[in-house]
Amino acid sequence: MSRSSSALRLAFVAAATPAARAAKAALEERYNGVKSADADIIVALGGDGLMLQVLHRNIKRKRPIFGMNLGTVGFLLNQYRATGLTSRLKAAREVTLNPLRMVARTTRGQVREATAINEVSLFRSSRQTARIGISVDGMERLPELHCDGVMVATAAGSTAYNLSVHGPIIPLGTGLLALTPISAFRPRRWRGALLSRHAKVEFTVLDPHKRPVAAAADSIDIPNVETVTVTEATDIELTLLFDPEHDLEERILKEQFAS
Amino acid sequence: MSRSSSALRLAFVAAATPAARAAKAALEERYNGVKSADADIIVALGGDGLMLQVLHRNIKRKRPIFGMNLGTVGFLLNQYRATGLTSRLKAAREVTLNPLRMVARTTRGQVREATAINEVSLFRSSRQTARIGISVDGMERLPELHCDGVMVATAAGSTAYNLSVHGPIIPLGTGLLALTPISAFRPRRWRGALLSRHAKVEFTVLDPHKRPVAAAADSIDIPNVETVTVTEATDIELTLLFDPEHDLEERILKEQFAS
Amino acid sequence: MSRSSSALRLAFVAAATPAARAAKAALEERYNGVKSADADIIVALGGDGLMLQVLHRNIKRKRPIFGMNLGTVGFLLNQYRATGLTSRLKAAREVTLNPLRMVARTTRGQVREATAINEVSLFRSSRQTARIGISVDGMERLPELHCDGVMVATAAGSTAYNLSVHGPIIPLGTGLLALTPISAFRPRRWRGALLSRHAKVEFTVLDPHKRPVAAAADSIDIPNVETVTVTEATDIELTLLFDPEHDLEERILKEQFAS
Amino acid sequence: MSRSSSALRLAFVAAATPAARAAKAALEERYNGVKSADADIIVALGGDGLMLQVLHRNIKRKRPIFGMNLGTVGFLLNQYRATGLTSRLKAAREVTLNPLRMVARTTRGQVREATAINEVSLFRSSRQTARIGISVDGMERLPELHCDGVMVATAAGSTAYNLSVHGPIIPLGTGLLALTPISAFRPRRWRGALLSRHAKVEFTVLDPHKRPVAAAADSIDIPNVETVTVTEATDIELTLLFDPEHDLEERILKEQFAS
Repeated sequence: MSRSSSALRLAFVAAATPAARAAKAALEERYNGVKSADADIIVALGGDGLMLQVLHRNIKRKRPIFGMNLGTVGFLLNQYRATGLTSRLKAAREVTLNPLRMVARTTRGQVREATAINEVSLFRSSRQTARIGISVDGMERLPELHCDGVMVATAAGSTAYNLSVHGPIIPLGTGLLALTPISAFRPRRWRGALLSRHAKVEFTVLDPHKRPVAAAADSIDIPNVETVTVTEATDIELTLLFDPEHDLEERILKEQFAS
Repeated sequence: MSRSSSALRLAFVAAATPAARAAKAALEERYNGVKSADADIIVALGGDGLMLQVLHRNIKRKRPIFGMNLGTVGFLLNQYRATGLTSRLKAAREVTLNPLRMVARTTRGQVREATAINEVSLFRSSRQTARIGISVDGMERLPELHCDGVMVATAAGSTAYNLSVHGPIIPLGTGLLALTPISAFRPRRWRGALLSRHAKVEFTVLDPHKRPVAAAADSIDIPNVETVTVTEATDIELTLLFDPEHDLEERILKEQFAS
Repeated sequence: MSRSSSALRLAFVAAATPAARAAKAALEERYNGVKSADADIIVALGGDGLMLQVLHRNIKRKRPIFGMNLGTVGFLLNQYRATGLTSRLKAAREVTLNPLRMVARTTRGQVREATAINEVSLFRSSRQTARIGISVDGMERLPELHCDGVMVATAAGSTAYNLSVHGPIIPLGTGLLALTPISAFRPRRWRGALLSRHAKVEFTVLDPHKRPVAAAADSIDIPNVETVTVTEATDIELTLLFDPEHDLEERILKEQFAS
Repeated sequence: MSRSSSALRLAFVAAATPAARAAKAALEERYNGVKSADADIIVALGGDGLMLQVLHRNIKRKRPIFGMNLGTVGFLLNQYRATGLTSRLKAAREVTLNPLRMVARTTRGQVREATAINEVSLFRSSRQTARIGISVDGMERLPELHCDGVMVATAAGSTAYNLSVHGPIIPLGTGLLALTPISAFRPRRWRGALLSRHAKVEFTVLDPHKRPVAAAADSIDIPNVETVTVTEATDIELTLLFDPEHDLEERILKEQFAS
């Protein structure tokens, strides 16, 4: 990206850890930190959890976000370095993500909407196995999945929870979503499906009173859902900045070859 | 088994469903049902959930149990038929199972013991990924598994929750336990291990206050565990009765060839 | 597609089975079959093997191909019906596929080129495990895969051999290729990767004299290869015709939900 | 094992590599090597391939075998050290293995028998997918498996080819065999089965002329088989010697926890 050095107003956001806070204080002094509302770029200091929070909070502001890893995992983050930030930001590569839009209707009839950068998941909230029907683009594909849960993951989220439950890693920019079961009991060898990014996935919780299920858009939980629809939020674009030698596309590709 | 027809005193236990209760009433009248304490054989009417309860309640009484399927799944159960019970019981094949013994220590220092016929499992009880260390026979084998949970399943339980989380089906009578991760995040491709029935498995929950974990022996839940040890309870023997043409051994074998 | 009934000249091609030959004879009489060179549409009668052959033979002629299943598997084929062909062809939906282009260099220095509709695969041709290095877009990703073989599959081919070796099913039109190992011994849990359709995959056979490897583009075999590159042949378009209610896209989607 | 130092007559066998031959020459001089027929213990120098050969050649002689790794993989082998051999052999732990017995009948009606320490496998010997029926103890379990092949592996062999084709690792001494498909096309999600060591597995090659299949007992190949039965050879015991800190049981256990 081309940005003139003089114009770069930076806002720093830190996770609630001593290391992240200390880094924030030092960087704010060095780079004259401003408030998020006044910033050209948000610099997030922490782990993937903080990064997701910052992304969620900036959905409307549309500012690019540069994360530096001072926490755990750090898939969406760059390496932390205390100096040289301006030149890194000028050289950074932009990656644009569309989040998922979840519309959930609860057993009480309330409708809740939320966005997810990594995944929308449904999970049983009692010891009873969940029973969930799955439709894609209005056509029923699985009338009754017996499972702990099920999720739709984006390419960016495909290396997160999706990978733990044996879902495929999806390269960025290929227009795919992963529909992945969590501990499927029946059909027991169902491995999930890769779907077009234009797909509309609808989950129907069967027997939601005896077998309650909660939905989650990243970390936003909605208990006692009855139906959940998931689509790509084509109207929202999130911009992440990455050091060019190790951007998100490269990370996801590399992850596919990790042993 | 050889039992004289005259001597067969039967106790009937039913799940809390209309169908199971109606069957119980009819069978008690036909076969002069007695109390469990006075019975030679317990006849369980319901699904796998009821069967596990009846097995747990009869650990000390050592009476053989014949289940008939009036519920869901029914892996431990025979087909329901309203008549011909006496001759089925006389012809039935005995299968003897050793349950697992779980000893759990909570974060408050309480020690709780429970037995499990299917599996002992640990599962995160917050949104935080669990971190669990695993030792076998006193030797640390995985210092830190990042996961939703982990379980030890018996052969009888290997077709239950273990199978949903991609664990192997174990034939009866081979002296093996399945140690199976639930949604392993790191090491992410760890598939679990088959262990000798003499193995002592110890789980240590790391960071149990930030990342709380509950243990379960079948359906008995123990929240906030810090360490959990699992061994085979060689001192307990449970006797199940099966119609010879379709006993548990055959079912487990058949399940391995189901597509 | 819109084609005027009068203009439809059809060529029929049949597999070498009695059923396929009989169908060809009957259809040629009913629909006045012409030579392939003179046809508007090629009608292929047989299984997937014949269909692949017909597709290969028509790469340069660019005629649409309508297959009817008179053989085994039949993933690329429509149901066989002896009558009503003209109206089916008029109502048919076109699916356009780009094949893969394989360029193989043998241990003797010969360069061979071939196209593949389903997959390009490498496979050991002795009892010795193959050792194959893998680069993507000029960057080495796996220096040494010990395996029976490895393949690149198209979306159309993702439900064929790729699926047998545990590769993912890819929906049509999403611009992805599946790179999938065949019996990977080391790294033993490597599951393969999804790659952009623009990727250039290069395989280097290590130790090709002691550990000989053959390459195959669909059924075209090239023994004793040393390097093999695979790219999408963006300059070749193959047109298949499908009954609208059950086209290839629907079949691949359906296959993902098959239990 | 307890053996008096004076009594230990050692025979050295080496793979056809310069390193193995040099080691053999040095060890024979240092330890006064004798012929295999006169030895108390055979010392094998090479990789797993040589070790399997030496085991096969000594099936009748029943001498314990101590392997030292001068080749590749080395799962059945100890670390190579040029000195201290006598004390290692005295301290070594014995592991006893029963091989598999394969009886194969070819399409020409010939009956061939062979033993296998790791696995008996069937594999297609043309481009045609193999079709194989599977019976266990006289009962048909899979009428028609479409596949590249199928195998029965011992516990010792479970970490070899069996693992590459996604079969389970089996601990030693648990009385199990792994029946594992190789690239199953139909039923496509069949993962194989764990069987009792007393099981008799029978494979029937369907359509063996159009779809030829070869059987292999370790590296002994038998082309054009029609039926193959596999049982444990309970009458044959092979004795391997291992350094106590890292014996085969420990290796297999460790392999299950490798990431």
